[in-house]
Amino acid sequence: MTKLNEMTATEAANKIATGEATAEQLVQACLDRISEREDDVQAWVYLDPDYALSQARTADEARNSGKGIGPLHGVPVGIKDIIDTADMPTENGSPIFAGRRTNHDARCVAALRAAGAIVMGKTVTTELANLCPNKTRNPHNLEHTPGGSSSGSGAGVADFHIPLALGTQTGGSVIRPASFNGIYGLKPTLGLIPRGGVLMQSHMLDTVGTYGRSLDDLALITDVISIYEPEDAQSYTGSRGSLRDMLAQEPPRTPRFAFLRTPAWDHAEPEAQKAIEDVAASLGDQCETMDLPEPFDQIIDLHLTVMGAEDLAYYGEYLEKQTELLSDVIKERLEHAKTIRGDAYVKALLARETIYESLVKLLGDYDAVLCLPSCGPAPKSLETTGSAIFNGLWTYLGVPCVSLPKLTINGMPLGVQLVGMRGDEGRLLRTARWLDNQL
Amino acid sequence: MTKLNEMTATEAANKIATGEATAEQLVQACLDRISEREDDVQAWVYLDPDYALSQARTADEARNSGKGIGPLHGVPVGIKDIIDTADMPTENGSPIFAGRRTNHDARCVAALRAAGAIVMGKTVTTELANLCPNKTRNPHNLEHTPGGSSSGSGAGVADFHIPLALGTQTGGSVIRPASFNGIYGLKPTLGLIPRGGVLMQSHMLDTVGTYGRSLDDLALITDVISIYEPEDAQSYTGSRGSLRDMLAQEPPRTPRFAFLRTPAWDHAEPEAQKAIEDVAASLGDQCETMDLPEPFDQIIDLHLTVMGAEDLAYYGEYLEKQTELLSDVIKERLEHAKTIRGDAYVKALLARETIYESLVKLLGDYDAVLCLPSCGPAPKSLETTGSAIFNGLWTYLGVPCVSLPKLTINGMPLGVQLVGMRGDEGRLLRTARWLDNQL
Repeated sequence: MTKLNEMTATEAANKIATGEATAEQLVQACLDRISEREDDVQAWVYLDPDYALSQARTADEARNSGKGIGPLHGVPVGIKDIIDTADMPTENGSPIFAGRRTNHDARCVAALRAAGAIVMGKTVTTELANLCPNKTRNPHNLEHTPGGSSSGSGAGVADFHIPLALGTQTGGSVIRPASFNGIYGLKPTLGLIPRGGVLMQSHMLDTVGTYGRSLDDLALITDVISIYEPEDAQSYTGSRGSLRDMLAQEPPRTPRFAFLRTPAWDHAEPEAQKAIEDVAASLGDQCETMDLPEPFDQIIDLHLTVMGAEDLAYYGEYLEKQTELLSDVIKERLEHAKTIRGDAYVKALLARETIYESLVKLLGDYDAVLCLPSCGPAPKSLETTGSAIFNGLWTYLGVPCVSLPKLTINGMPLGVQLVGMRGDEGRLLRTARWLDNQL
Repeated sequence: MTKLNEMTATEAANKIATGEATAEQLVQACLDRISEREDDVQAWVYLDPDYALSQARTADEARNSGKGIGPLHGVPVGIKDIIDTADMPTENGSPIFAGRRTNHDARCVAALRAAGAIVMGKTVTTELANLCPNKTRNPHNLEHTPGGSSSGSGAGVADFHIPLALGTQTGGSVIRPASFNGIYGLKPTLGLIPRGGVLMQSHMLDTVGTYGRSLDDLALITDVISIYEPEDAQSYTGSRGSLRDMLAQEPPRTPRFAFLRTPAWDHAEPEAQKAIEDVAASLGDQCETMDLPEPFDQIIDLHLTVMGAEDLAYYGEYLEKQTELLSDVIKERLEHAKTIRGDAYVKALLARETIYESLVKLLGDYDAVLCLPSCGPAPKSLETTGSAIFNGLWTYLGVPCVSLPKLTINGMPLGVQLVGMRGDEGRLLRTARWLDNQL
């Protein structure tokens, strides 16, 4: 029998709901794994085992008293340390916020608790969810980066510390760690998951995402936290169908894929290029290799323009007033962003809709884009979190992306990325399930 | 009896509807006035008298045949020459667009035609709806500017060429000409009137507005063109009550006014300061003089930051490729906009909501802000269109503004500006009616 901490969240939630396991047993199994591995992996910035167990006991008592339970009842979730929690510090990966506590949960955390989840602790983020690495290592090989900025969430799920975790993506911070750590990761449509109580870096880009051990896990946790947030102008206003319901359906036809090398292609390692081309080839007639039209040529720069100007708008005050508490990496990045002109930013936002429309037109007949999620497996370095060049373009367009842990290169995992249209993560997950079974 | 061309649009529309006058008589009266005055005032860039008369005859035939008629049936309207018309050129006040024709009407023009209006011709705009003056003169004194950028619309309504006209405001281009020419003008909430087919200068600021001879006229024309436009992210999404219905109501209580000097105060002429202070004083307990809270200190610069970055995003290509066709005034302005940083633009947009919230809080108990619409009456110069410093702050906040022609300084008109909350132009016009009767 699979150990409790190695089960998918879906299995674990079922066992707790039916009484085959208790939340306390599950949390204890996770804590045992963490105490065994944390010195090496260093996925956590805040973890109080007694408090996690007390939450679990409360959950067990609630169930045993006959109280109705939510879909994540008793299931522990790791929370990236830029997401506010009322009962734990949120330090944003920076000494600027050392010891910072708020007295409220981020909206997504409140929704997790309302669904019965155990807030296990805070997972390591890079500095201000930006590029400078933190302490976490890749559980597949401790000399390799776990990716960033959701480093602890990716490594923690991969290393069986927790079945589920929250991350965020502004460049490639959900999908890249999913690829590097060999787990399932979803960066949904911009604004699908509310951002209230999450460190703001770039309001046109920042997207809360989810990690799990299966596509069902992604649907389970994402459904719980997919909530319209009227205070956020970027909150997704379209319909929000149940992803679990969509995943339960058979596709109405065999899915069709558009394989895109994307303008990032030349940055990919040859083995990674070959691996994804092999996936495309294995799909035969179900997959067509396509070129992106002209407006895509500038997309990588357009993403950097939006991100740079917004980063500087939100973080510029730290650069001015607390520069000694910033890493050289982020200082250079913010200094460089001073060269971004207002009209360039405006044009980058205007181009976003034009390019998205051209994508919709191009992909009208396909169920998903197939592409690389990263340039290759996790680099052998703890001085970098790897390149986000295969992610920024999709973050810029605000479209949902999922990474499936289906490839291996030199013993290190590499994901397969599927991308869908805005608001269509139900179809994206259903298509991913088909591919997951196929590969 | 008032001459047909001097009637309010409301009176003229009633006479045509009841058969007391024909559209042809009205249009002929307007054309007679234009031919008498146009050499001096120069309000028009395109006018085909035969075509205007033929539209009027068609309107008369439609009515006489028993066909149902719209609220503006047979009433001529002047259209600012940055607003597309399928049957006339639209030259945007610039040689770059000399002879330009599109084969479709702007949405607001199409709505006017659907309501039975006669599209009289195209009124003079400054170059690209920006600062550089064009040929129009102030009908009250030909040595004075009519204001800009809606120069011909303001002067044409004031000089009895047409009872109604459309303008647009990015800085102060609707309210300033209303004040300088002594007519009623409304700059509604950002996005209340659709912008499809209107030259885009700044998508966060550009607002289509209306001119008329009474508040009823403003309600009449604005109701007809107040239409949600899903393609425009700035289109106003709140409810759109009938302004005519609101104007027909008595205020439920005597209106209360907040007199604001605003951060522009020191730029006003002493006579104008005294005139508006006298208005405030005449209202006694119904008017309270208030100071704006701290976030307003930077509002004039914030408006210029948004306008500069967006102007350059939309007009930068002319600066690069057709610089010889631009005036020195706009070239300098666009060159200066290159110094606006991306993060400054982002912060200016973020501040907009914060400041608006503080305004809502401040004014919760009042029906309207009372303030100057311009620094004074129209300057004695044709080399400038006057300062927009009393307008930019309200355009930036996206709130509705109305100017009432109630003051005179040294024989030149000066308006009284009232400002309301977003989407509340019904209350604003009703409050303005009360004040209009009071003064």
